[in-house]
Amino acid sequence: MKNNLESKRPVILVTNDDGYTAPGIRKLIEVARTIGKVIVVAGEKSMSGQGHAITISTPLRIKTICHETDYEEYVTNGTPVDCIKLGEQVIMKGKPDLVVSGVNHGSNASINVIYSGTMAAVLEACIDYIPAIGFSLLDYEHDADFSHTGPVIESLIKKVLLEGLPNGICLNVNIPAISTESMKGVRVCRQAHARWVEEFDSRFDPRGGGYHWLTGKFENDDMDEDTDVWALENNYVSVVPVQYDMTAYKSIELIKQWNLLI
Amino acid sequence: MKNNLESKRPVILVTNDDGYTAPGIRKLIEVARTIGKVIVVAGEKSMSGQGHAITISTPLRIKTICHETDYEEYVTNGTPVDCIKLGEQVIMKGKPDLVVSGVNHGSNASINVIYSGTMAAVLEACIDYIPAIGFSLLDYEHDADFSHTGPVIESLIKKVLLEGLPNGICLNVNIPAISTESMKGVRVCRQAHARWVEEFDSRFDPRGGGYHWLTGKFENDDMDEDTDVWALENNYVSVVPVQYDMTAYKSIELIKQWNLLI
Repeated sequence: MKNNLESKRPVILVTNDDGYTAPGIRKLIEVARTIGKVIVVAGEKSMSGQGHAITISTPLRIKTICHETDYEEYVTNGTPVDCIKLGEQVIMKGKPDLVVSGVNHGSNASINVIYSGTMAAVLEACIDYIPAIGFSLLDYEHDADFSHTGPVIESLIKKVLLEGLPNGICLNVNIPAISTESMKGVRVCRQAHARWVEEFDSRFDPRGGGYHWLTGKFENDDMDEDTDVWALENNYVSVVPVQYDMTAYKSIELIKQWNLLI
Repeated sequence: MKNNLESKRPVILVTNDDGYTAPGIRKLIEVARTIGKVIVVAGEKSMSGQGHAITISTPLRIKTICHETDYEEYVTNGTPVDCIKLGEQVIMKGKPDLVVSGVNHGSNASINVIYSGTMAAVLEACIDYIPAIGFSLLDYEHDADFSHTGPVIESLIKKVLLEGLPNGICLNVNIPAISTESMKGVRVCRQAHARWVEEFDSRFDPRGGGYHWLTGKFENDDMDEDTDVWALENNYVSVVPVQYDMTAYKSIELIKQWNLLI
């Protein structure tokens, strides 16, 4: 359903997986506030790599940081997915017009979509048929500069509010770490078929117990020009439409031919 | 690639998200040991609802429970996805012939696939091009009876070892909580489009602080006969081929027509 931005101020629910103090969400809030009423529901600490985790064995708590007419901010002890659930059911008691998540500190292109708390929040909104966009910046530096993500965020938010998104579809937007002037434009693409190859850093503690830090390197053998990785390497913003239906439709007939018996 | 089960004993990596003492994984281990060499790498406690979470801010530890020629068992403090990564990289230093996960205590049909630690482990193996199957039993009782899952597990493991699976495809197998004799057969199907509708149980602690327990009810408005939910409600075992490519290919053209500008 297309919307008229002029008729009423849209309500935008904002979250992330880097915690509510991260510079990425601060930039996202700044831009979203120029467009609509903003309600922030974010984690009190970093939940990076939490995937689609939900909290079922610990009670969830909400702290109110700010409650103004046009701006509300809450922090929780939950995961990004919990933040969306709490935002809708406990805080808003209704659905926002849009959910935006990020700006993530690092790439969520390619296979990162499946590990990402930022994108899990977006998918959770999508499951509830709320238009939703995840934003990520390809900058891993501690003092990453999010300032140039503004025009991309503004453009995407306005377009999605205007055009809507099909039910079951959300957007994964990745932004290269270059100035707006250096960006060649926006590419709508598919997720590159890449993976993380683990390289555990194995150590011993002072008492002789072994432990392992998860590290890894990104390995991409999918060089096609229609992928998000190609777009980003060539100074484009990548936009991948993402769905939560994980059925491998093309393989249904193959597996049927197995004639599985119990 | 098709394999000959007679030529060598396959190596099967077993994990779950209910913890290594859960009756579901014990049943899975029992069946897998009749088919191949089994290496168990599972969490020391329940990781239900952990989705595709990985552990990046805590060191991972491995305890050896058992190390025999044909059987090894390890427990970790990691998530189901961590267990697969540790199993391949630290314990086996190589790939198993098959990964099996479960038997999960409760359904992983429909949208549950996205929240499930059991299926996240399967998807993680799939990303590494290892054939992988997740098993779940639709029984939420504390003393759920996993005994009748044996024939289904055996049939699927043998078939996948024989036929292989296409790269990027894994299987989500759900088993109704009825006797083997009452099962009508196996249906290869798609993920039903359903969702959990949250119903937070909100309370106050003795000091007056509010907190919220995440609960919810499963809501399915997708009644087609080609879905996993239909199969299970009609006493079939459901087998859904699942992929980790979350690109919504059908929406790429639509979004391209937006002519997005920065």
